[in-house]
Amino acid sequence: MSRSVRVEVVGVGTELLLGQIANTNAQWIGERLAEIGADVLFHQVVGDNLDRIVAVIEIAASRADVVLITGGLGPTEDDITRDSIALALRVPLERDPALERWLRARFAGFADGAMPENNLRQADVPQGARTIDNDRGSAPGLAADLPGGVRLYAMPGVPSEMVAMMRSTVLPELAARIGAAVVRSRTIRCVGVGESRVAEILADLFEASSNPSLAYLASAGEVKVRVTAKAGTVDEAESMIAPIVTEVQLLLGDVVFSLDDESLEQAVARLLLASGRRLACAESLTGGSVGSRMSAPVGSSRVFIGSAVVYTTESKERVLGVSRETIEGPGVVSRECAIEMAAGARRLYQADVAVSLTGAAGPDPHDGAEPGTVWIGLEADDVSHARGYVASGDRARVRRWAEQSALDMVRRYLEGGRLPDNDRII
Amino acid sequence: MSRSVRVEVVGVGTELLLGQIANTNAQWIGERLAEIGADVLFHQVVGDNLDRIVAVIEIAASRADVVLITGGLGPTEDDITRDSIALALRVPLERDPALERWLRARFAGFADGAMPENNLRQADVPQGARTIDNDRGSAPGLAADLPGGVRLYAMPGVPSEMVAMMRSTVLPELAARIGAAVVRSRTIRCVGVGESRVAEILADLFEASSNPSLAYLASAGEVKVRVTAKAGTVDEAESMIAPIVTEVQLLLGDVVFSLDDESLEQAVARLLLASGRRLACAESLTGGSVGSRMSAPVGSSRVFIGSAVVYTTESKERVLGVSRETIEGPGVVSRECAIEMAAGARRLYQADVAVSLTGAAGPDPHDGAEPGTVWIGLEADDVSHARGYVASGDRARVRRWAEQSALDMVRRYLEGGRLPDNDRII
Repeated sequence: MSRSVRVEVVGVGTELLLGQIANTNAQWIGERLAEIGADVLFHQVVGDNLDRIVAVIEIAASRADVVLITGGLGPTEDDITRDSIALALRVPLERDPALERWLRARFAGFADGAMPENNLRQADVPQGARTIDNDRGSAPGLAADLPGGVRLYAMPGVPSEMVAMMRSTVLPELAARIGAAVVRSRTIRCVGVGESRVAEILADLFEASSNPSLAYLASAGEVKVRVTAKAGTVDEAESMIAPIVTEVQLLLGDVVFSLDDESLEQAVARLLLASGRRLACAESLTGGSVGSRMSAPVGSSRVFIGSAVVYTTESKERVLGVSRETIEGPGVVSRECAIEMAAGARRLYQADVAVSLTGAAGPDPHDGAEPGTVWIGLEADDVSHARGYVASGDRARVRRWAEQSALDMVRRYLEGGRLPDNDRII
Repeated sequence: MSRSVRVEVVGVGTELLLGQIANTNAQWIGERLAEIGADVLFHQVVGDNLDRIVAVIEIAASRADVVLITGGLGPTEDDITRDSIALALRVPLERDPALERWLRARFAGFADGAMPENNLRQADVPQGARTIDNDRGSAPGLAADLPGGVRLYAMPGVPSEMVAMMRSTVLPELAARIGAAVVRSRTIRCVGVGESRVAEILADLFEASSNPSLAYLASAGEVKVRVTAKAGTVDEAESMIAPIVTEVQLLLGDVVFSLDDESLEQAVARLLLASGRRLACAESLTGGSVGSRMSAPVGSSRVFIGSAVVYTTESKERVLGVSRETIEGPGVVSRECAIEMAAGARRLYQADVAVSLTGAAGPDPHDGAEPGTVWIGLEADDVSHARGYVASGDRARVRRWAEQSALDMVRRYLEGGRLPDNDRII
């Protein structure tokens, strides 16, 4: 049976109090703790001040079984979480010789080999505490038991370092402490559909499901549907999830691009690999973002050849052979230009499939097209297609949605589905 | 003269603890409070639980002059901030007849005119408290004085309603209480240097400065130094900041790329525009990320022509004319390839300046180069330069640092500075 474990999340950093950054670490941690069934009752945030950090740790320890601290473990003078923990534990800091050697070795590999001496503060460990390896940065994490048996973990505030330590050490240790319950979830990802539409389609299933439960998360041109089950074993949890995932897929249809939390570019890469085809892009509006995303997954060089970024009118003509008729006629934000760009990129890179993007990101009109106008083109042996729409929102949103539309058009083509046509506003 | 006023920000809502949303209200409030010179020492977040909300209010009141609460003022059963405040004040809730009329009138205007009775809870006011009008929703805000003279404000958690009440009532009242103080800050941005090195160089200045104060913030291949002054007037604050900014710039030297919080791509665009030059890129390693960043700022088409993304060896040869000798000799991750890619892009796009990136992002070696190997090339009328190094970290970090190195090389060239040479590891 599972035991109730109360966890308190403490963020350290004056930048959080000044509002320079939001406390997204607490959000990420809260989500993960909910998944393993831990009870989070409070968050606190405190600045880089010794007495106040100690006070916050003491309040947390008075009402929680486990205290998770993020931030203040770096090398600079204002990084004083280590010192505060030592004070709260009523023990001295001791320099760990192995950590010191590791830090010196890390810097010896750098350009001039000179390590600023204050980096060695990161080798200081409160007596009796254990360190958590950091494979992404120089500040190790800490784990210690406060008087009264409250477990304390401290991690760097850099999100990637915190996430790595949570996954490697903190979450497994907490899950073991909580006991038998296993929580598993799968994330279904959709593109080209809004969160409210997804919620409407899945309303009955949502109402009927408490375990597994459903949750929605909308982000930059995508909607995620997360199915979470609690059970006695992993197998049991997964066999509870599987039929719900199938039902979600059937209800949502072809807006679903992944049943396993792949990114859209990963899904496209998987489909390209499976069909033995290679992709090229032609980008104006997005300036290279689609190429950047297609080259992000490991192994992408097997399916992605390149992208011709042609931001000016002359470069569209010179690099991709967009015609004078198109440039002087409908202009560079047009169906004709999108088709010619895709054809040009397919020829230039000798690709099986090419996708193109041209548009007016805003805030001003571009070549006669109103801000938000987007054209996506697709060229392959058996297809020459373009789709246009006007997107609402600022420059970054127009670009992000265009990336999604372009990758989704490639995805639908590779899956043999219907290619989307023009929309008015998305 | 200004008085020090300590403010604590309390978020109420189980959805914050579960990580369903980030506490962006606290961030927004923190920024605004910093602007008027209030001292925010702590944030707390608590779920929808009466005893725990009361406990959090009591802790906040013990260490702050003003407590700002967001969330839990709505009409549903789990909205219990009103009840908690009444408990903390040790007074009963009283139904406000004017508020009740306002709520009934509000609903009378709706489609079917039927008001769920629990909406009237929003007309309940702790005895002695005053309400703050809500012109965007149905839940009024509250202002009350706790025993001991601590001022408490409660606002809805819906950001637009909270923002409206902060602007209409809370910020003006706090500014009046604080007195004349104005807070201004400027952010200096650096690239190609670590946070610990920046802190070492500025250690004496950091120690000596309390007003203006210095703060460091490291992110993805950059370090920001923020200089913040409190003064009686904006002019006074700015004249206190100016000499510190100059001193920071002198101490840090050519790693500084902006004195006004520009992004690196904005700084490069500014320098290109000022010198009447246009940039092209040749990207392998980064797949288009540099082009994407250069095309992000409004107006970038005046200075950025395009980027040839050549992810495969054949496309480097076909699109950019990288030579057989290079491909068969040192390979595509080499000084020679970086130079030929930059020269090819400059020719293809007829650019004044071209920058190239080639490398092995990892996790596997690429064309004989170990993971993390990066070569950056630069070509212009008067320069043909390349720089190589091996970066540590994962694929995303290697790519991100390469973007920074490439944009920084262009920045240094345009500023007439020394171009960086090879490093071993960064």
